[in-house]
Amino acid sequence: MLLVKVEGARTRQLWCDLLGELRPGLVARPFDAPDARPEEARYVLTWAPAPGWLAGLPNLRAIFSLGAGVDHITTDPTWPRHVPLVRMGGEEPGQRMGEYVAWACLTLLRHGRDFARAQAERRWEYKVGEDTARDLTVGIMGMGALGAAAAPMLRGLGYRVAGWSRTRKAVEGVESFAGAGELDAFLARADVLVCLLPATPETAGIVNRELLAKLRPGAGFVNAARGPHAVVPDLVAALDSGQLSGAVLDVFDPEPLPAESPLWSHPKVTVTPHVASVARRRERARYVAEAIAGFEAGGPLPNLYDPVRGY
Amino acid sequence: MLLVKVEGARTRQLWCDLLGELRPGLVARPFDAPDARPEEARYVLTWAPAPGWLAGLPNLRAIFSLGAGVDHITTDPTWPRHVPLVRMGGEEPGQRMGEYVAWACLTLLRHGRDFARAQAERRWEYKVGEDTARDLTVGIMGMGALGAAAAPMLRGLGYRVAGWSRTRKAVEGVESFAGAGELDAFLARADVLVCLLPATPETAGIVNRELLAKLRPGAGFVNAARGPHAVVPDLVAALDSGQLSGAVLDVFDPEPLPAESPLWSHPKVTVTPHVASVARRRERARYVAEAIAGFEAGGPLPNLYDPVRGY
Ligand SMILES: NC(=O)c1ccc[n+]([C@@H]2O[C@H](COP(=O)([O-])OP(=O)(O)OC[C@H]3O[C@@H](n4cnc5c(N)ncnc54)[C@H](OP(=O)(O)O)[C@@H]3O)[C@@H](O)[C@H]2O)c1
Ligand SMILES: NC(=O)c1ccc[n+]([C@@H]2O[C@H](COP(=O)([O-])OP(=O)(O)OC[C@H]3O[C@@H](n4cnc5c(N)ncnc54)[C@H](OP(=O)(O)O)[C@@H]3O)[C@@H](O)[C@H]2O)c1
Repeated sequence: MLLVKVEGARTRQLWCDLLGELRPGLVARPFDAPDARPEEARYVLTWAPAPGWLAGLPNLRAIFSLGAGVDHITTDPTWPRHVPLVRMGGEEPGQRMGEYVAWACLTLLRHGRDFARAQAERRWEYKVGEDTARDLTVGIMGMGALGAAAAPMLRGLGYRVAGWSRTRKAVEGVESFAGAGELDAFLARADVLVCLLPATPETAGIVNRELLAKLRPGAGFVNAARGPHAVVPDLVAALDSGQLSGAVLDVFDPEPLPAESPLWSHPKVTVTPHVASVARRRERARYVAEAIAGFEAGGPLPNLYDPVRGY
Repeated sequence: MLLVKVEGARTRQLWCDLLGELRPGLVARPFDAPDARPEEARYVLTWAPAPGWLAGLPNLRAIFSLGAGVDHITTDPTWPRHVPLVRMGGEEPGQRMGEYVAWACLTLLRHGRDFARAQAERRWEYKVGEDTARDLTVGIMGMGALGAAAAPMLRGLGYRVAGWSRTRKAVEGVESFAGAGELDAFLARADVLVCLLPATPETAGIVNRELLAKLRPGAGFVNAARGPHAVVPDLVAALDSGQLSGAVLDVFDPEPLPAESPLWSHPKVTVTPHVASVARRRERARYVAEAIAGFEAGGPLPNLYDPVRGY
């Protein structure tokens, strides 16, 4: 039995229907269904379960996260660490994230926020910059599944791309920087900084005053990873001083972004409501169904959370 | 002598300085300089000269347009048709137009207008669509210098691309439709229609009710060519009926777009102030200087207006 623990009774049922259709042998149930028995749950598909809930399932063989990030599970102090935790994967999340990052970088380059504000006031305000994408380097912090998918899409628009990760990468056309020791060199290269890091203790608050000061004056910033990566007062200060020329932000802490946040009305900030990469339900259900099929045939589970590296 | 006839005394002087620097032998003067003599003018660099002005230059060998379009010159009934008219070219206009078209298509795909409106009201309004770029075909009307540059940039984002032009094209990865007889088949293919046609009598008002009805319901529309290509009341009707899901418009008739236009506040329209492809002054001056150098060495002028086809 697989239990689905996500918000919304209708959504839970949709997931169960899809999983049942894609893997007919699998009994998929909303966690609150009358016949959902915790001790029979072999699998769980979940986003942000209430802390303690997972600990009450004694026979779990795998936990599937609805998204690529798993911080909403691993921040539960009681989550069963001995159970394999599968991060959402597949082709579609990378495609969607690449689209978002491309849109965000072009919005910064081509004055999208200025034009949106001018349009709201029926103002024709001509603005053309000196640079084209060919003059700029996008620095992607976090060259994992999503960063690696975004890189060639940015290259196709003419941007140079540099990546920063824990381990060095060999991606065609992408200059790779690895580890804390190469962070400064990476930052010096970036005209636009894109955060695609996982949320871990090491990366919390990484985009702060000190880091932002290492970018060239007038750089752009995109956060499509997790809200806690960026220190909002430091971001606002960098925007106000001109150290940053603009930011496109998809993720916040907390979410939804409260109405009183200064980010909503900041003239240099574009806000989107955590939409950068949400794959179709059917594609995600297919990913889970195939992972279970492979696992039950004796194969390994894909895209596992690694407790040592923390993502 | 080359006369510069554009708006702004300072801008005219900047053009003259650049041209003088890039081609030291060339005497470049603002059209209203004390030593600017109409009868000595061999060349003109201009955008929208007052009707009749060009006719008063008896010894012109070539007219250079500041932009890729030349409708602002050819609509002067007295323009000297025997003088070669050079359209702006080079690499940069294509790069810039590709960026704009990519941004516009992604803005339509990823709900940029909805999020801009929500941001203005501090509203967190989650919206994620079914399609990725890989599910969609962008149909480019006008596969000239700019359309051909935009196509591979869209392909790099995952879109399929179809093009429509007078003559058939063989561009890798782009399905080519040619002439009036294949317009309907082209339109049936397009999920997003991008206008990059020149302004000619045949193309005026081409994006009207009849054409829009041939697109699949819910298609998107981008106009980055010229305002008169689109019939605004027909566009608004198609947006209101849902036949179009959104539009991104850079060009209008007249410009600047008047404050009372319904386009400014339409919930499905993104307005930008004719900024899609404005190349750096230096790059354009280089293009003109090189064209003159080649011409004076006995070679042909590049990128000429053809009075028979009308662009
Ligand atoms: N906004 C949205 O809609 C949305 C949607 C999906 C995902 N996300 C977020 O996007 C982010 C990226 O997801 P993903 O699936 O691409 O993650 P991933 O595959 O785990 O990749 C993480 C990358 O970050 C690097 N990294 C981790 N810790 C690091 C450190 N301390 N120093 C340097 N590099 C470090 C990793 O390096 P190695 O390659 O060397 O391991 C890897 O390249 C996550 O935060 C996820 O939650 C957001
Ligand atoms: N918004 C901005 O900032 C901006 C900046 C620059 C230019 N523009 C505008 O962008 C447009 C495109 O410029 P461009 O330099 O790419 O022009 P171009 O090189 O002259 O290309 C025009 C294209 O349209 C096709 N075409 C012309 N008449 C046609 C007809 N009746 N039926 C079917 N196809 C037809 C041509 O077909 P063939 O290839 O077969 O000849 C060609 O592919 C122009 O309107 C220009 O004014 C706008």
